[in-house]
Amino acid sequence: MTDFNAYAATEAGAKLTPFSYDPGALGAHEVEIKVSSCGLCHSDLSMINNDWRASQYPLIPGHEIVGTVTAVGDHVSHLKVGQTVGVGWSSHSCGHCGQCLSGAQQRCPKLTTTIAGHGGFADRVRVQGIWAIALPDGMDARGAGPLFCGGITVFAPMMDFGLKPTDRVGVIGIGGLGHLALQFARAWGCEVTAFTSSTDKMDELSSLGAHNVVNSRDKEALKPLRGHFDMIISTVNVSLNWPAYLSTLAPEGTLVTVGAVDEPMGIPAFSLIGGQKSVAGSDTGAPHMVAKMLEFCARHDIKPMVDYFKMDDVNKAITHLKDGKARYRVVLEN
Amino acid sequence: MTDFNAYAATEAGAKLTPFSYDPGALGAHEVEIKVSSCGLCHSDLSMINNDWRASQYPLIPGHEIVGTVTAVGDHVSHLKVGQTVGVGWSSHSCGHCGQCLSGAQQRCPKLTTTIAGHGGFADRVRVQGIWAIALPDGMDARGAGPLFCGGITVFAPMMDFGLKPTDRVGVIGIGGLGHLALQFARAWGCEVTAFTSSTDKMDELSSLGAHNVVNSRDKEALKPLRGHFDMIISTVNVSLNWPAYLSTLAPEGTLVTVGAVDEPMGIPAFSLIGGQKSVAGSDTGAPHMVAKMLEFCARHDIKPMVDYFKMDDVNKAITHLKDGKARYRVVLEN
Repeated sequence: MTDFNAYAATEAGAKLTPFSYDPGALGAHEVEIKVSSCGLCHSDLSMINNDWRASQYPLIPGHEIVGTVTAVGDHVSHLKVGQTVGVGWSSHSCGHCGQCLSGAQQRCPKLTTTIAGHGGFADRVRVQGIWAIALPDGMDARGAGPLFCGGITVFAPMMDFGLKPTDRVGVIGIGGLGHLALQFARAWGCEVTAFTSSTDKMDELSSLGAHNVVNSRDKEALKPLRGHFDMIISTVNVSLNWPAYLSTLAPEGTLVTVGAVDEPMGIPAFSLIGGQKSVAGSDTGAPHMVAKMLEFCARHDIKPMVDYFKMDDVNKAITHLKDGKARYRVVLEN
Repeated sequence: MTDFNAYAATEAGAKLTPFSYDPGALGAHEVEIKVSSCGLCHSDLSMINNDWRASQYPLIPGHEIVGTVTAVGDHVSHLKVGQTVGVGWSSHSCGHCGQCLSGAQQRCPKLTTTIAGHGGFADRVRVQGIWAIALPDGMDARGAGPLFCGGITVFAPMMDFGLKPTDRVGVIGIGGLGHLALQFARAWGCEVTAFTSSTDKMDELSSLGAHNVVNSRDKEALKPLRGHFDMIISTVNVSLNWPAYLSTLAPEGTLVTVGAVDEPMGIPAFSLIGGQKSVAGSDTGAPHMVAKMLEFCARHDIKPMVDYFKMDDVNKAITHLKDGKARYRVVLEN
């Protein structure tokens, strides 16, 4: 057994530096994966910087992993050595709590996250078998990583809040998550509106699925959309004019934030009461949901748009993302 | 035709004084109702005081009406003279918009409300036939008025947000709405918790359906309830410690406010994202929902607890409600 080689932050905000660790014996329910590539997510930056006051160092980021199974534990029967799999935010769950047993393993109270353990900016990773999800036949593995966090994060609310093909959907913020949300909502059958400050990219937004593009910085632009949307998915982590966006919801509409807005959202009760509207949050997804998402992506040819970097250039990639240059997701390749 | 005799506020915050008006010809889709009794709701006070900056004077409050049909318009075939009916917040809807056609008539953009037209603090009222809902056989008419606003306001979210008999429900504020919510949730099959500052009324709260009573002013009392509730219905119109209450929601749980909290609710995105939680609002209900609620009340012997006043003592009744003495709803009788 040789050590695993990774890139880690040794303290809050540090540049990533090479870091090796001994993973110990392979657990009976675990698989070992040779990492081909790993997406870089904004939440990696938040974790590196300890924005959420929960980081522990050395911290190996990376939770949008694609790779090849190189070893399976004694109790793993659904995966084989050589199979191509992906791994997202979660790496281990207990398997016997109410959440695990009801198919919401991502909400297991004992959940271990990839990023709080040993992430994917490495040559190899280990996760519990159920959290390594096989790619469907024919799916391009190279750019698939971002589906496992960015993708499922916006796909899950569409599944869980009952989005219907007859619905009108708004997506706020067209970045790593938003550009996938547009594609999902379009393939779902919905009317799709992109809210973005980059309204110059009309052709690209249209090719991603947007029927309409609205300047998210123009309060006046929201007025004609009063009562329009059945669901709005907000992917940004900054405060918006929430009452203005809530006014664009149709009766029984839901605004789902998947962006970890730091400041409390100021929500007037009256904006919710009239028309029985909701503001919701959504986290990631369970393995069965990820599998459905991958199948949906394969069927509809949905792919992340990716800027590729070498794993060894991880710090360059981080700068690229920080500078707002990613179109739309960054992937690191071994 | 004689004028209708009512009590009205002639300006914001005024005492109610006798007021007569000529209702004109009965509309083809309308019914005329001789008012037996009418509940007094906090929203009557808000409207009298113009708290919501939408009142017009003279304003005849009263939107929890029970009475007898005395005339039916030419196009009303489902009600007969002599029938006992109830009327709530809404009095007329267009009948052909998407909301009306989909059974959400209470969200008709052209909705007329009882209180913005001519309310139930009167000897007679007129409403569109579909908004006069027949009381089930055997239901005690005398105390039924509060079901038509207070009742449906807390019953609607149970219907619309899919409350299950296996769920755990919390009710914040045990007043006119809350004491009905406890009864509904108990009959629904749920585990029921009352959040109240009146924890001395344990026997009464228990008889209303509460399995547990928690002091709503004691932040420490919320801590052991972390992750407990599938639904919380908040009936109060003051700011609460929303993050603390959200922490008591189970995954996929919803906090529904039916209280018109004036100050924006400060909702941390993180309180919603982990566990895919929601904050929702809810207004009133459509006629078909009110009919189902009445049937449910008859089956489960659910009744408002009422302090009765004579209609002529309306100002005394208002003082009684303002002073927080109502246990739990005030009804005015002709």
